[in-house]
Amino acid sequence: MSHTVEIISVGTEILLGSIVNSDARDLSRDLSELGLNVLYHSVVGDNPGRLKAAVELARSRADVLITTGGLGPTCDDLTKQTLAEAFGRKLAFHPECAQAIREYFARMGREMTDNNLQQAYLPEGCEILDNAWGTAPGCAFEEGGTYVVMLPGPPRECLPMFRERAVPWLSSLSEGVIRSRTLRVFGMGESAVEALLRDRMNGLANPTLAPYAKEGEVELRITAKADSAGAADALIAPVEGEVRALLGDLIYGADVSGLEQVVLEGLKARGLTLGTAESCTGGLIAKRITDVPGAAAVFHGGVVSYHCEIKAGVLGVSQALLDEKGAVCAQVAEQMAQGARRALSCGLAVSATGVAGPDPDDRGNPVGLVYTGLAAPDGCWVKKLNLASPGARRDRIRTLAANHALDMARRWLAGLDPTGADCQRGWTD
Amino acid sequence: MSHTVEIISVGTEILLGSIVNSDARDLSRDLSELGLNVLYHSVVGDNPGRLKAAVELARSRADVLITTGGLGPTCDDLTKQTLAEAFGRKLAFHPECAQAIREYFARMGREMTDNNLQQAYLPEGCEILDNAWGTAPGCAFEEGGTYVVMLPGPPRECLPMFRERAVPWLSSLSEGVIRSRTLRVFGMGESAVEALLRDRMNGLANPTLAPYAKEGEVELRITAKADSAGAADALIAPVEGEVRALLGDLIYGADVSGLEQVVLEGLKARGLTLGTAESCTGGLIAKRITDVPGAAAVFHGGVVSYHCEIKAGVLGVSQALLDEKGAVCAQVAEQMAQGARRALSCGLAVSATGVAGPDPDDRGNPVGLVYTGLAAPDGCWVKKLNLASPGARRDRIRTLAANHALDMARRWLAGLDPTGADCQRGWTD
Repeated sequence: MSHTVEIISVGTEILLGSIVNSDARDLSRDLSELGLNVLYHSVVGDNPGRLKAAVELARSRADVLITTGGLGPTCDDLTKQTLAEAFGRKLAFHPECAQAIREYFARMGREMTDNNLQQAYLPEGCEILDNAWGTAPGCAFEEGGTYVVMLPGPPRECLPMFRERAVPWLSSLSEGVIRSRTLRVFGMGESAVEALLRDRMNGLANPTLAPYAKEGEVELRITAKADSAGAADALIAPVEGEVRALLGDLIYGADVSGLEQVVLEGLKARGLTLGTAESCTGGLIAKRITDVPGAAAVFHGGVVSYHCEIKAGVLGVSQALLDEKGAVCAQVAEQMAQGARRALSCGLAVSATGVAGPDPDDRGNPVGLVYTGLAAPDGCWVKKLNLASPGARRDRIRTLAANHALDMARRWLAGLDPTGADCQRGWTD
Repeated sequence: MSHTVEIISVGTEILLGSIVNSDARDLSRDLSELGLNVLYHSVVGDNPGRLKAAVELARSRADVLITTGGLGPTCDDLTKQTLAEAFGRKLAFHPECAQAIREYFARMGREMTDNNLQQAYLPEGCEILDNAWGTAPGCAFEEGGTYVVMLPGPPRECLPMFRERAVPWLSSLSEGVIRSRTLRVFGMGESAVEALLRDRMNGLANPTLAPYAKEGEVELRITAKADSAGAADALIAPVEGEVRALLGDLIYGADVSGLEQVVLEGLKARGLTLGTAESCTGGLIAKRITDVPGAAAVFHGGVVSYHCEIKAGVLGVSQALLDEKGAVCAQVAEQMAQGARRALSCGLAVSATGVAGPDPDDRGNPVGLVYTGLAAPDGCWVKKLNLASPGARRDRIRTLAANHALDMARRWLAGLDPTGADCQRGWTD
């Protein structure tokens, strides 16, 4: 029998829009990898009646029921009471949980308020899921063929609790293996990718192939189900080969966190170092590079030259050029990258200068006009970009600008033309 | 009659955990402000049977039904067909929509693939919600007392479509006004805040007062319902006063986007400029400051001195100090801040140096040990922080470090002790 899962997230703050339901995303990704089919997400508020009805419904349409939220110390946390009632169990005080909560506060050097001890009440006869990442323990039980797991809501507790505590308990339910491989595409829009692959996608059942639009890029996910990881991977490989033949060097990586990871790996492989010179992106490129653990091995540093004074003073951009043309032009992007290479003593440097908005700059350059630059031992390249589109706000323009700058480094490291085919060609020196 | 809302999000990619359901968050926040009660979020995959069942259920428990996703050109987009069927309507081709889609592609300078024209099929007799932010139009209709709105899934289309197109259509349903005010607290944990406010919270019905844990801080939301905005605000004001009396200068702002916004406003008010010197935060502080539109008025720039060479060469940190003590110590944080003030010609500078992980540094400094610094015209301050906690990974440690650095600037600008009461006191020069 194939197991089906419903995730019920409990919390009025989700329904008020105060927080995004990232727990459901995190758990779904892991559950899919385990071969368990997530068919529904539900969100209900801190309301016992509606929660109970949601639980009854979930029992009728899924056999694994995972709740997130509502286990904490605050008075509106009702999940345990309601679930226990729905499944005909009483809540019992677990002294070992109370002790663990006391120890958690001692370890943190914080004083424990009494309301925290409410968290030690759990359904009778349940498996306690010890919480090493916070105070509220989770729990799990099986009742009449339904498998119930309750996890705390805070994302940095929910996901490790699931992985370290719930998965061992659930593992007996997993059958077969679902594996997926995600190809990352930069430089072509979702509907163009979909049109290119549509015939092939329609012909596929196992593995499946699906495109997902991401911030400024497209992900192609190939997913296969089989008896073993090896067998699933063997189903995936030929489809990956076909997709790569169609999209070529627009595919920048597989199962990677983003362009920044590919750039760092390319730098390590080539024994090169990187620096950044940022204006409109304001530190975002450096931040993304240093998101990756181990970035220090190849990333030297960066300059956020938000004001022209810094562009001239720290990066050595020509003051005459800045006076004549302003900060948003190809030559400034070029000199910023070259200046960063010098000032930061690195092998490669990327730069970005442009107008992130919401308003045009004081020379009338429009929102979305961005120049990205790359300085390398063998030359310097600049891309001129128009990143404006309906609904593209400051954060999106900055993200796209960072993507383009990183992609220039990625392409140079892979031995490709850094400016790619899709953009106006810049300079070489 | 009070209207109740269910949001149904359609997309297998949400159930696979490939994307987070940010649309539901965005719409919920706005719907709450309109005075419409969101009681449920549901997510179903690209499956007509399960979607139809979810729609039937939603009709039975809410009277406003908003769908997101499944309107696009790709072949698994089934929302319109299924909803039309569930409400007994046919799909009809709308030539004016086809024309708008063609014009969208022309405006973007991109070629239109034929599958895009599927998006011009919409339920008979519906109100078309024109999409100026993408290609898929939305639609709305009323049937048997149920109000149905269908919106596209991509977040940068969904939210503006809702605000500009759906809200005018829905506005007749709104009754009364819900207003909320969010106080932001830095320097005290959620359960301590909750314990402090619990008695007051329990006694409140309108307005309500609720704490929400955020990344490294706590939000306190006061929400009131009344006939007019003025009446709701009058209910909120005295509760805000009480909360402020209890939490004092731990409250850093109300209805602000974050510490960075408060710092920028403080700088503008004092006519001062800011610079950053970052090591472990790797550009995050500068990125957060420049997230705020208009940052250029007071933010000069930053140096990401990831390697010691940059700390010494660009920021002028003593090489002897770096050789003797390494990069992670109070004196380096101090000299980084002072160096940034000099090199970037700014009035205030903040700095951060420490170990973000996942591994201790090569001198054995533990993950989570971070020093943040502030250089100001009247002195220099340093905070020593232990940001390690169970489950605290690299990104959280970096976020917390950035928060502390920004809070030092915030406190100095407000005339408070920059290091606050909760942390080990640093130096003054």
